[in-house]
Amino acid sequence: MKVLWIFAHPEPRSLNGALRDEGIRTLTELGHDHRQSDLYAMNWNPVVTGADFAHEPADRLVVGSASRQALENQTLSPDIRLEQEKIDWADAVIVHFPLWWYGMPAILKGWFDRVFVKGFGYGVSSPGPDRRTLRYGEGRLAGKRAMLITSAGSGEPALGPRGVNGDIGELLFPIQHGTLWYAGLSVLPPLVVYGADRFSETAYDNARTDLRERLRTLPTAAPIPFRRQNHGDYEDLVLRPELAPGRSGLRIHQTN
Amino acid sequence: MKVLWIFAHPEPRSLNGALRDEGIRTLTELGHDHRQSDLYAMNWNPVVTGADFAHEPADRLVVGSASRQALENQTLSPDIRLEQEKIDWADAVIVHFPLWWYGMPAILKGWFDRVFVKGFGYGVSSPGPDRRTLRYGEGRLAGKRAMLITSAGSGEPALGPRGVNGDIGELLFPIQHGTLWYAGLSVLPPLVVYGADRFSETAYDNARTDLRERLRTLPTAAPIPFRRQNHGDYEDLVLRPELAPGRSGLRIHQTN
Repeated sequence: MKVLWIFAHPEPRSLNGALRDEGIRTLTELGHDHRQSDLYAMNWNPVVTGADFAHEPADRLVVGSASRQALENQTLSPDIRLEQEKIDWADAVIVHFPLWWYGMPAILKGWFDRVFVKGFGYGVSSPGPDRRTLRYGEGRLAGKRAMLITSAGSGEPALGPRGVNGDIGELLFPIQHGTLWYAGLSVLPPLVVYGADRFSETAYDNARTDLRERLRTLPTAAPIPFRRQNHGDYEDLVLRPELAPGRSGLRIHQTN
Repeated sequence: MKVLWIFAHPEPRSLNGALRDEGIRTLTELGHDHRQSDLYAMNWNPVVTGADFAHEPADRLVVGSASRQALENQTLSPDIRLEQEKIDWADAVIVHFPLWWYGMPAILKGWFDRVFVKGFGYGVSSPGPDRRTLRYGEGRLAGKRAMLITSAGSGEPALGPRGVNGDIGELLFPIQHGTLWYAGLSVLPPLVVYGADRFSETAYDNARTDLRERLRTLPTAAPIPFRRQNHGDYEDLVLRPELAPGRSGLRIHQTN
């Protein structure tokens, strides 16, 4: 399997840096090919500007249309094209980051903002006569797998179903459902490392064991069963009333 | 009232740019003082690095402790200190951005990553003998108000309680609850501009009317009733079983 490992931590001598190194070693042991996007090491620019699209500054910038045009004309900024090429190469994408303010560090958010342009991550239509939008389980990246690895200072109960910080699965919904699944990738359950601010050697051994097991099952583990948009569960983009009847909340967008 | 308007759109000649201009005009008409952080115009750097903290590169960087130390020693990067000074000045903070991948553009996420350092946005303890952590309704920024203004390409039903994209209130939970409320700010319901990719003049007039009304009621509108951490609703950081009994999901962290 070909694995792209995206890493977004400023300090390689960190818990996450150690887990990344362990993960890369494990992939090699398992016989997988890998490539890395170590965003801090690459000095990745996370800010969308007209320069991404060779956009004429005198003209008003409309990000969606400008990005689609640049994708089609192959005038996207070279750093964006290289990341897209890596994603096209990969069968699976690992997205590895410390949880900052219950989301991705800016350098990683801006990897999605800049790389998942219109026509690549969204705005993809079916070739048939209906020209329906392909997203949420369909799209240019369908058939690939993704998995988040993230560390939280908090313990597990405070990120559980009734924890004060909110349930981790729902906090990650904008990334797992709204970005990865949107673009077509199947998303495996995340590997969450809790209590990362005070980490014992035993905790590290456990995290390493978990990581190795999750990488071993990367090709086979069951993805989060997010609903597909275009397979009958939604009508006019709203969940049909007979599914999860009377309920709301982000969990209704999974079939379990 | 003193209002800080944080704006994160790359194109001032956009729908959001027009709404920002209208908002600033309205604040002046209402007799409020304002300051702006127009992040693109400022060329804001959103990436946390050791340079933020005058950190010695040879030493391992631990972001939390390095940032707290730099805050205490007044060695935080000047651009961060200026933003903190603006927040300290303000009674209310408007956070205005287009919704990209169901979250903030990276330039704005990195405003929070860099400005809300330990001791400022988190890691604040009560002065009393219990030294309990002040967050979720308490903290250094308690007493201030905040409101999001965001635009979405999607229509309203698809971002509603059973919409395919997820409910907008829950998608914004990491920002509204996990960041602003965490740091102590009271968060007013967001102003969401739907269907922003195809916007008619009538739609603009309606959005402008909504915006003006929301700014008129900025000092008085009822905040989202997020639960406070330290007022009896949580035990060991988990919601007490008699509150929202049997339920889970992000909405249980509001009292309504």
